[in-house]
Amino acid sequence: MTLPEAGKLHKVSIGDFDTEAGALISDVHIAFQRWGDLRGDNVLLVEHALTGDSDAAQWWAEAIGPGKALDTDRWCVICTNALGSCYGTTGPSSTHPDGRAWGSRFPAVSIRDQVHAEKAFLDALGIGRVHAVLGGSMGGARTLEWTLLYPEKVGAACVIAVSARASAWQIGIQSAQISAITRDPAWNGGDYYNTGDAPSHGLAAARRIAHLTYRGELEIDERFGTTPQADENPFGPFRSDNQRFAVQSYLEHQGTKLVNRFDAGAYVSLTEALNRHDVGRGRGGLNKALASSQVPTMVVGVDTDILYPYHQQEHISRNLGHLLGMSKLSSPMGHDAFLTEARQMDRILRKFIKRSQDDVSGTQH
Amino acid sequence: MTLPEAGKLHKVSIGDFDTEAGALISDVHIAFQRWGDLRGDNVLLVEHALTGDSDAAQWWAEAIGPGKALDTDRWCVICTNALGSCYGTTGPSSTHPDGRAWGSRFPAVSIRDQVHAEKAFLDALGIGRVHAVLGGSMGGARTLEWTLLYPEKVGAACVIAVSARASAWQIGIQSAQISAITRDPAWNGGDYYNTGDAPSHGLAAARRIAHLTYRGELEIDERFGTTPQADENPFGPFRSDNQRFAVQSYLEHQGTKLVNRFDAGAYVSLTEALNRHDVGRGRGGLNKALASSQVPTMVVGVDTDILYPYHQQEHISRNLGHLLGMSKLSSPMGHDAFLTEARQMDRILRKFIKRSQDDVSGTQH
Repeated sequence: MTLPEAGKLHKVSIGDFDTEAGALISDVHIAFQRWGDLRGDNVLLVEHALTGDSDAAQWWAEAIGPGKALDTDRWCVICTNALGSCYGTTGPSSTHPDGRAWGSRFPAVSIRDQVHAEKAFLDALGIGRVHAVLGGSMGGARTLEWTLLYPEKVGAACVIAVSARASAWQIGIQSAQISAITRDPAWNGGDYYNTGDAPSHGLAAARRIAHLTYRGELEIDERFGTTPQADENPFGPFRSDNQRFAVQSYLEHQGTKLVNRFDAGAYVSLTEALNRHDVGRGRGGLNKALASSQVPTMVVGVDTDILYPYHQQEHISRNLGHLLGMSKLSSPMGHDAFLTEARQMDRILRKFIKRSQDDVSGTQH
Repeated sequence: MTLPEAGKLHKVSIGDFDTEAGALISDVHIAFQRWGDLRGDNVLLVEHALTGDSDAAQWWAEAIGPGKALDTDRWCVICTNALGSCYGTTGPSSTHPDGRAWGSRFPAVSIRDQVHAEKAFLDALGIGRVHAVLGGSMGGARTLEWTLLYPEKVGAACVIAVSARASAWQIGIQSAQISAITRDPAWNGGDYYNTGDAPSHGLAAARRIAHLTYRGELEIDERFGTTPQADENPFGPFRSDNQRFAVQSYLEHQGTKLVNRFDAGAYVSLTEALNRHDVGRGRGGLNKALASSQVPTMVVGVDTDILYPYHQQEHISRNLGHLLGMSKLSSPMGHDAFLTEARQMDRILRKFIKRSQDDVSGTQH
């Protein structure tokens, strides 16, 4: 098929989809965007994080474009919206064939399901192999699964700020976020789409918790400390939701911003996929699975990541069958550093592209 | 006054109490327990953590007793329940003079208020000076405030696993907990005590979040990893609250346990006190306040503490006017290590007691 105009959102049908856990999602569509021309084996598949979308040239603006590390003069960068999300790809808020929203009928999807769906999408586009897959956080989990599910289709991989499986701590904090949403009376068991209401308070609460795991605690403290929000007094004689510290206002703003752009059902669906992330499942365990990987893979982490501590990337690196290299982002930003530390990411991504070409062409390095 | 029987819960009236923020709490009572005989200047005042109580010989069993680090053959160990709590000391669930619960009428209290109330309690007992104050977490915050509010009454201090002020990250995660409670429909603005209902779901949710900050992520992962709860399948075709990972069940158990022993209003009150913790307030800033301290103070931290990272104790140590020493607990347990790493705490507390005696008697060390 001919690719759509550069940067333009487009949807591809992949038909009915069977999930890893044995449920059927009928009539699945995958939304995507691309930048740069497709010339055979020059695809860079970029994977977004939890609440991200296919507009990678926006959220990774400093990494993607002409002359940039992911050089769209040389590469065809493709980014799809993940299965279960709400930016065009089929998810809980999508319309079921019966005309109503999927809601609670949308099955649990795993990271593997997202990769299988993306593979079906590439098949539909007639793309048999990509030069590399790259992604951070949930995108890193998908990248890692790509190397294990379809190694023959991936030239190289760059796995950023993620672990080989959900840790118990991650499952705990992620379940707290799911619970914040499902405890919202407007959740209605997941079937709120035609009620005129939505679990916005729950979604905002989930985001506030999540955001504290996305940022380094020193970074947040340097910005806000114990400063009161302007014209508010958090030291008054009675506690008040309207008399806040600046950091409370900031976190509430983060929650509101997400509510305005994201669906609570999709948030639950994708968070559940992260809970189920485990490359060892059905493969003889984590380290056996990692050792079996033959795709040249670069691993990247952040020194101050609370959510995916650096030792988790060290674990991946130590056990991977074909390690292309390892890089550490040094930053007070925490987990989000892969999105915000543009200068460091530029160097890392250029190194990755270089090594991936050397490796594919058999050069020693 | 004569002290009550060793280990027995007793209440002392300190009358009306004016809070730092300018509210009145009438007819305040302080609940306490003591172990060991009072012989002049031999009081060790132990300060409990957020949801702790005055039964220090229970929650610090390996530290307090005959022959133990806090040797009750030598010392009179006294522990009070903090102002705002629910174990005998006046708090939101206590009876207002009008016969109904305080509820939303209970003012915001600060860590300083808790110390002022405790000082009034010691006055009521006729105890003019204590040999030392010791405590971890919220108890560490109270201990630090003791050294600044009443330096002439404190021989030495042991400040464990706390910071000189709330960090923005702490305020964020603590506010998420408060919000989990106040978003519970049963909260009723804080006035649920005569409704026959209580915000138990909210309190449990708060505790689940909090617990993830009390334990090291490696410790939780080593115990639970991605193991499913017995007879449950968290990998089924649909997400279900009844099909859980073991860590979810564990955290829910922690929530339920707290609900069965603690009041949600007290949880909000004490968490708010932690939000307001700032030894620099009104004293020219953090470092000036710390530098002004003349009480010999030992500082203790945990290498894996997520809630009060070790750099916060390093900050206290670097700036304190009279540092008695610094110790690091090395443990995967995280913040709770000061309660669970009995062997290490035993050595630290014995060192503290020794140095406090040397220092008080003027010995060089």
